[in-house]
Amino acid sequence: MERSLAEHAAQVGGEVVGDGRVEIRGVRGLEEAGPGDIAFYANKKYRRAFETTRAAAVIVEPGETRAGAIPLLAVANPYLAFAKISTLLHPPPRAEGGISRSAAVQPTAFVDPSAEVGPLVSIGARAKVGARTILRAGVRLAEDAVVGADCLLHENVVVRERCVVGDRVILQPGCVVGSDGYGFAFDPEGEGQGPRHYKVPQAGIVRIEDDVELGACTCVDRATLGETVVGRGSKIDNLVQIAHNVEVGPLCLIVSQAGIAGSTKLGMGVVLAGQVGVIGHLTLGDGAKVGAQAGVGQDLEPGAIVSGSPAFDHRAWLRASAGFAKLPDLIRELRRLEREVEELRKR
Amino acid sequence: MERSLAEHAAQVGGEVVGDGRVEIRGVRGLEEAGPGDIAFYANKKYRRAFETTRAAAVIVEPGETRAGAIPLLAVANPYLAFAKISTLLHPPPRAEGGISRSAAVQPTAFVDPSAEVGPLVSIGARAKVGARTILRAGVRLAEDAVVGADCLLHENVVVRERCVVGDRVILQPGCVVGSDGYGFAFDPEGEGQGPRHYKVPQAGIVRIEDDVELGACTCVDRATLGETVVGRGSKIDNLVQIAHNVEVGPLCLIVSQAGIAGSTKLGMGVVLAGQVGVIGHLTLGDGAKVGAQAGVGQDLEPGAIVSGSPAFDHRAWLRASAGFAKLPDLIRELRRLEREVEELRKR
Amino acid sequence: MERSLAEHAAQVGGEVVGDGRVEIRGVRGLEEAGPGDIAFYANKKYRRAFETTRAAAVIVEPGETRAGAIPLLAVANPYLAFAKISTLLHPPPRAEGGISRSAAVQPTAFVDPSAEVGPLVSIGARAKVGARTILRAGVRLAEDAVVGADCLLHENVVVRERCVVGDRVILQPGCVVGSDGYGFAFDPEGEGQGPRHYKVPQAGIVRIEDDVELGACTCVDRATLGETVVGRGSKIDNLVQIAHNVEVGPLCLIVSQAGIAGSTKLGMGVVLAGQVGVIGHLTLGDGAKVGAQAGVGQDLEPGAIVSGSPAFDHRAWLRASAGFAKLPDLIRELRRLEREVEELRKR
Repeated sequence: MERSLAEHAAQVGGEVVGDGRVEIRGVRGLEEAGPGDIAFYANKKYRRAFETTRAAAVIVEPGETRAGAIPLLAVANPYLAFAKISTLLHPPPRAEGGISRSAAVQPTAFVDPSAEVGPLVSIGARAKVGARTILRAGVRLAEDAVVGADCLLHENVVVRERCVVGDRVILQPGCVVGSDGYGFAFDPEGEGQGPRHYKVPQAGIVRIEDDVELGACTCVDRATLGETVVGRGSKIDNLVQIAHNVEVGPLCLIVSQAGIAGSTKLGMGVVLAGQVGVIGHLTLGDGAKVGAQAGVGQDLEPGAIVSGSPAFDHRAWLRASAGFAKLPDLIRELRRLEREVEELRKR
Repeated sequence: MERSLAEHAAQVGGEVVGDGRVEIRGVRGLEEAGPGDIAFYANKKYRRAFETTRAAAVIVEPGETRAGAIPLLAVANPYLAFAKISTLLHPPPRAEGGISRSAAVQPTAFVDPSAEVGPLVSIGARAKVGARTILRAGVRLAEDAVVGADCLLHENVVVRERCVVGDRVILQPGCVVGSDGYGFAFDPEGEGQGPRHYKVPQAGIVRIEDDVELGACTCVDRATLGETVVGRGSKIDNLVQIAHNVEVGPLCLIVSQAGIAGSTKLGMGVVLAGQVGVIGHLTLGDGAKVGAQAGVGQDLEPGAIVSGSPAFDHRAWLRASAGFAKLPDLIRELRRLEREVEELRKR
Repeated sequence: MERSLAEHAAQVGGEVVGDGRVEIRGVRGLEEAGPGDIAFYANKKYRRAFETTRAAAVIVEPGETRAGAIPLLAVANPYLAFAKISTLLHPPPRAEGGISRSAAVQPTAFVDPSAEVGPLVSIGARAKVGARTILRAGVRLAEDAVVGADCLLHENVVVRERCVVGDRVILQPGCVVGSDGYGFAFDPEGEGQGPRHYKVPQAGIVRIEDDVELGACTCVDRATLGETVVGRGSKIDNLVQIAHNVEVGPLCLIVSQAGIAGSTKLGMGVVLAGQVGVIGHLTLGDGAKVGAQAGVGQDLEPGAIVSGSPAFDHRAWLRASAGFAKLPDLIRELRRLEREVEELRKR
């Protein structure tokens, strides 16, 4: 796995400034890096750490310079280059084909011979597991669940019946795909037993498209009818709630503890920051961005940037928030003005 | 499972307008429905879809009409009728009596012979599982846990020691019943070792009453002493936090990611929308409704409707929120007025 | 386990007022307590319950009196004394050394003979479990995970590869230690396949220090590089999100559904109330306190007390929130004032 800086530069399409022969054995932050480590510098805030780092080399933007003799790898997107070099040094696990003796696999299930089924995994009737996919300990695939190729399902992940997971999907521990949507019809009579919330069958499924990642303890509810969809290449953080019949477009980013209510549709590349809430039956246009803890109650145009609860234009919200903190002063000024006007009227 | 429209109408107490002999083989949305499907129409927003649907029949409110020859099922509560017909077409799973070979059941546990214990389930000493109850793969019942009849515990659900689950309860995957409440007494000395947070034993239990549903990864903490209770027929969504000694009354609806702090009591039919927070030791009266992302810091009267953080009357909050967005304008107007008053005074 | 009131008083460093020979067999709230029970009274709000309790004895602050003959245990910190007496009456479980037959333990793992490994637990290669530690049913330790002595890992807890858990740590059911951090570099080319979010390897670990408790379904992400740390004696509630490279100092309290974004550092004794969000790369000074649902977007000084989203000084926030509710009135008054000033100008 050891490669020279020049080899890494060629791989990521960058240029070496200085001695390209230095061997890179690890990636590390500017402050922690030592001999053999490559670090990256992209944020002026860390200029001092860049100046004083003991790294063997640093990934920088083209044109960046530094006093001192450390070789630099200049590339248009240093963070991406760092990620690619780190992947070479920390390759993802490869499936060791085979089924653990302690796993419980129904005879009608199909597991590709190249897939790895960990200890105490259960796989239901007619479920399918694709090539080179890894199911870590305690994963649950219910009957007729389908998981594609090259997936990594971490410990205690649950994929409920008939749900479909694409290729190259990563599911973090404890994540749940296909729980029942939250749907109840109020029944005032309850067949003579008094009022009740009558459960609406959640007969649909969840479809997770290719290259998606779902975080730990994130829950994606199955559709009432039809499909709940998480689109190709979208990345979802921990403890996120995706309700029934939601459609998340491709390449979305949904940060921890955000929640999306039923039947809402997100376009391509939508970003929801942490703890955002979105009500049901909305449409969020391509590239819309929602600030942390915001509450979205209306459709968003493509490219909209909103904050606040209820959410509106982010810049207007910044100004309104500044005003909020000054409210006690404003009230005092208003009172004073009232007195002054009263005095003027009396004259 | 195939029935005619007329049979369904009789079942749900509705009336057929048109040909009642059409066979119903599925339920589907107005837009997706085709031959053999029944759809429902209750929201004027979907009028166009109602006019153009290819469904075999549509459930509507009495008096509703439509150009074109599709038979209608007219009934007072179309959504409830839809739910009931959908239940006939998607019946809940029935227990196949028996214990999976891979399950680990303590000899002193009692499992009703009609109950179904899935693969890799563990059942602790003296635990009880009632008739026709289904425990899906990986469910954990700790010692002395009691689960009633006709329950459905999905994959990887945990019920800790001594907790009690009633009849007809549904627990979604990964839900936790009986985790320790969050209780610590600050101990400045720590027996000579310096300050510490001393754990207060959480010696009570959780009691889940009949007909309750808890969502995926929802957590209900056991009481410090006594019981945490989720009342009869209440429905709780995913990722909800119910703290120790909370009492949720009957028929409550608690939406995803809401949280209730310790010892708070909810009356009957209380509704908490998504991401609501309620502080501890409060009483929320029967039928109180709390808007999404609100933070409740005071007792609520029966029937109260509140929003905001901190929460107050919903209508007043709507007006205040409208004002919030206008704060920058208000400040500008106030400044102008100040100048004008100053000028008037100078005159 | 039965002890006299006098013995308990000696144990907790308090004094008996009345007959110290009464036997204490249980702890209970003032209202539920009966013969043999000890209760505690520290909050004037419960004066009436204190006056009418049927408890055998009551823990109170020194100097507290009560009409009627119940013996009192007077001590400086009644809640702490209650917790200690409750611990004697509800001792934590003790490990029964041994490995359940249904557990899947890799041959290269080390399990201390005094540790208890419950049913259907999996322990990966080279993992270590310390003395007297209990792993309840379904716990997952991945390869090279290390768990110290005297720990209690509840049902379905996951500790991923290489993560380190100290001594006397309690992990509630479904909690996840070491899930991947949420890190992606945007790659506009995607090697000719179009744009993608390129996964940044999460090659670091999580370190949970001694005496920590993590709540049910709480998620602590592993570091991108280096360590995510939860410091000695910190107590974290259910459904909390701790992102990659976060450092939580010692003795912090983090209440349910709070979330901390990447690389943020909390000092000693920081308190985050329920549903708080903290953005990334911040420093929260020792003893800082954040009110429920607040959103912290800036560093906090030691001892700061803040509320609101975005958060600022708690007292100023209380005043601003009071003003918020009055906004519609303020607008009306401003309009009136404008008319009056207009009239004055016309004169």
